[in-house]
Amino acid sequence: MLMREIAESVTRSAIESVLPERAVKEALAADPICSDSPNGNVVLVAIGKAAWRMASAAHDLLGQRIARGCVITKDGHSLGAIGKLEIFEAAHPVLEQRNLDATRKALSMLTGLTERDTILFLVSGGGSALFESPQEGVSLADIADMTSQLLACGADIVEINTLRKRISSVKGGRFAMACMPASVRCVILSDVPGDRLDSIASGPACPDLSTCEDALEIVRRYRLNLPKNVMDRLGVETPKALDNVRTQITGSGPVLCESARSLLSGKGFDAALLTTTLDCEAASAGAFFAALAREAVRNRAARSRPLAFIAGGETVVHLRGKGKGGRCQEMALAAALGMRELEGVVFVAAGSDGTDGPTDAAGGIVDGQTVRRMKDRGIKAQEMLDDNDAYHALSASGDLLVTGPTGTNVNDLAVLLVE
Amino acid sequence: MLMREIAESVTRSAIESVLPERAVKEALAADPICSDSPNGNVVLVAIGKAAWRMASAAHDLLGQRIARGCVITKDGHSLGAIGKLEIFEAAHPVLEQRNLDATRKALSMLTGLTERDTILFLVSGGGSALFESPQEGVSLADIADMTSQLLACGADIVEINTLRKRISSVKGGRFAMACMPASVRCVILSDVPGDRLDSIASGPACPDLSTCEDALEIVRRYRLNLPKNVMDRLGVETPKALDNVRTQITGSGPVLCESARSLLSGKGFDAALLTTTLDCEAASAGAFFAALAREAVRNRAARSRPLAFIAGGETVVHLRGKGKGGRCQEMALAAALGMRELEGVVFVAAGSDGTDGPTDAAGGIVDGQTVRRMKDRGIKAQEMLDDNDAYHALSASGDLLVTGPTGTNVNDLAVLLVE
Repeated sequence: MLMREIAESVTRSAIESVLPERAVKEALAADPICSDSPNGNVVLVAIGKAAWRMASAAHDLLGQRIARGCVITKDGHSLGAIGKLEIFEAAHPVLEQRNLDATRKALSMLTGLTERDTILFLVSGGGSALFESPQEGVSLADIADMTSQLLACGADIVEINTLRKRISSVKGGRFAMACMPASVRCVILSDVPGDRLDSIASGPACPDLSTCEDALEIVRRYRLNLPKNVMDRLGVETPKALDNVRTQITGSGPVLCESARSLLSGKGFDAALLTTTLDCEAASAGAFFAALAREAVRNRAARSRPLAFIAGGETVVHLRGKGKGGRCQEMALAAALGMRELEGVVFVAAGSDGTDGPTDAAGGIVDGQTVRRMKDRGIKAQEMLDDNDAYHALSASGDLLVTGPTGTNVNDLAVLLVE
Repeated sequence: MLMREIAESVTRSAIESVLPERAVKEALAADPICSDSPNGNVVLVAIGKAAWRMASAAHDLLGQRIARGCVITKDGHSLGAIGKLEIFEAAHPVLEQRNLDATRKALSMLTGLTERDTILFLVSGGGSALFESPQEGVSLADIADMTSQLLACGADIVEINTLRKRISSVKGGRFAMACMPASVRCVILSDVPGDRLDSIASGPACPDLSTCEDALEIVRRYRLNLPKNVMDRLGVETPKALDNVRTQITGSGPVLCESARSLLSGKGFDAALLTTTLDCEAASAGAFFAALAREAVRNRAARSRPLAFIAGGETVVHLRGKGKGGRCQEMALAAALGMRELEGVVFVAAGSDGTDGPTDAAGGIVDGQTVRRMKDRGIKAQEMLDDNDAYHALSASGDLLVTGPTGTNVNDLAVLLVE
């Protein structure tokens, strides 16, 4: 098999290993709630962009053992009825009243539960907007106003979440509190690099690491102007321990990377997983990989096996140009520039959701002849990179990787192979 | 020994291994010209910033076997007489008439040589400006005018060298041609990432890869306005093969990196040399190393030995701020931001010349508490990085690495250690 074909097939297989269905089934396979004599009732609550697919997989496994449940996903992400589950589509990324209504419906399903019962809580990306119920006395407008003040001040996502958790009835561990005395079995399909549990969907079933003091400090720092009903809530502490929750991260970025590493190992590569939390500028990450490639080519005579380097995470692009592209395509184009005329090298960078930036490609797959193929078509690779126009450059050289939407979203995958 | 101490001592030792004296002695140790019954006469020509130190080391080895010779180095870089060698200090980086006079003196030493004789040609960084003799009919003013036209058009160093070689009597392999029928034993202390021989000092003893056609294409592309005497010279081809030259690169970036790898291996680290040609944005390179550190910490329980990652090369900084720093300090500060609160990690980035940017530091040595130490002193690490002010940030946290000028210049070294 040619190196390009190996790179592409490994990338596709690694992404398949983190699809919601597979992830949920692997997480629940050995779980007591799947046993023949389960304890109490199971209530299913699935939130996020992959909620429908996660719920559907859980329903395949548990069927009639699910007493009741609901699915809250993004508009257009429901694929139809799942048994007796109630399915809600809601707005994302901007919160609307119907999101709150759906969440209230989910909370209503928790009434009357005993400590023998289990909430099967399936969480995926987008959950923070899709799953929200403000504290009493706080309105949708209050949330919107506070959020826009924070964004205007340049507050980061951790700071925004610190405040958002305190005016919510479900974020920052409060959903799990509301489930008591029942236990919560939480399965998370993670798209947050580094898997910080309290960040994913703002952590509805995760003890909150931030404190009231942190919240008030943020208000002071940015001189926020918040109404009394909101300020009152900022002084109420979120749960710092939750002993009714068991959480498992599945289909995460690390699983995606480990899957690629294991596949390449099986194909005879000396495969190294460099990192699962890559977060630097996309073009520089591509240049770094190209530097790895040059070194591996330089030392080719000294080794017996081909090399593979794997990284996951989410790089960033600071736009300077006016072209079309995404962070994975930008990384691939930069790598191609640094790998010019190298023999026996291939680099692929792909978003696991199949949609890299505002394009129909998942990413790019490039080799030592990519820049030459561009040149043959009158395309100057460096100028295209400077214009953030990786999509058209890779399209011209035949180096786009197109998978279509995959239905999962667990970071990007980058793989360098050197013969 | 603490991780920080290991990182610093390995960095210092690796730099020592590429000092000019050590490099020349290792290169010549087993050479026929050092044998007891040498063949013919030896003429020494040493050029570049390290010329004096390389010549001095060669003189220690060869002594009276050197029939004659000269040293052309930068102003202030001569440390006194070396036997009967003629020592010239010349201007760098801007060419002056005295550079041409010194080079003509070197060329005069080649007269009367036979094929039994050897030119010991010692080359180091800066040689391109220090060693120059224009073709007949070309003046110093012609060179200056052509160079400034090229710089004004944004031509790159390869393009500039392609033209410069053609109006020179020594660049682009022409020095080696002038040595014929004698043979040339060339020892290069390299500061060019990737060791492209025809780039180092514009390759006086290296076959030229560029062609007359390339040269004329550059003239057309940038619409250069050159006098007839210069245009005539651009049509004369440079040597494409030189069978009288033996070249050895020593004290190079790869040697620097390999020395660090070997030292760390000896200390029980599982040490990987990632690349010797790192060339991406400095801050992104630091962020990439931090991502490696986070992964290595995440997997700490799964391994028995501490890890080391080594890279060499020359990163770039696109200035956005007004602070003080250098590319190694910038890389270290960015790494510190990404390694915040990690335990048992240390990252060092240092320029082998001991002078990183316009500062008195060689680079930085940072760990998981660097950002906290900055914060304790009221320094915001991210803001300092955004202002390209790594020097003052690292100074506040006590994380500058200061070696003083080392007398060599073979790229930067970056080392990440994870317990």
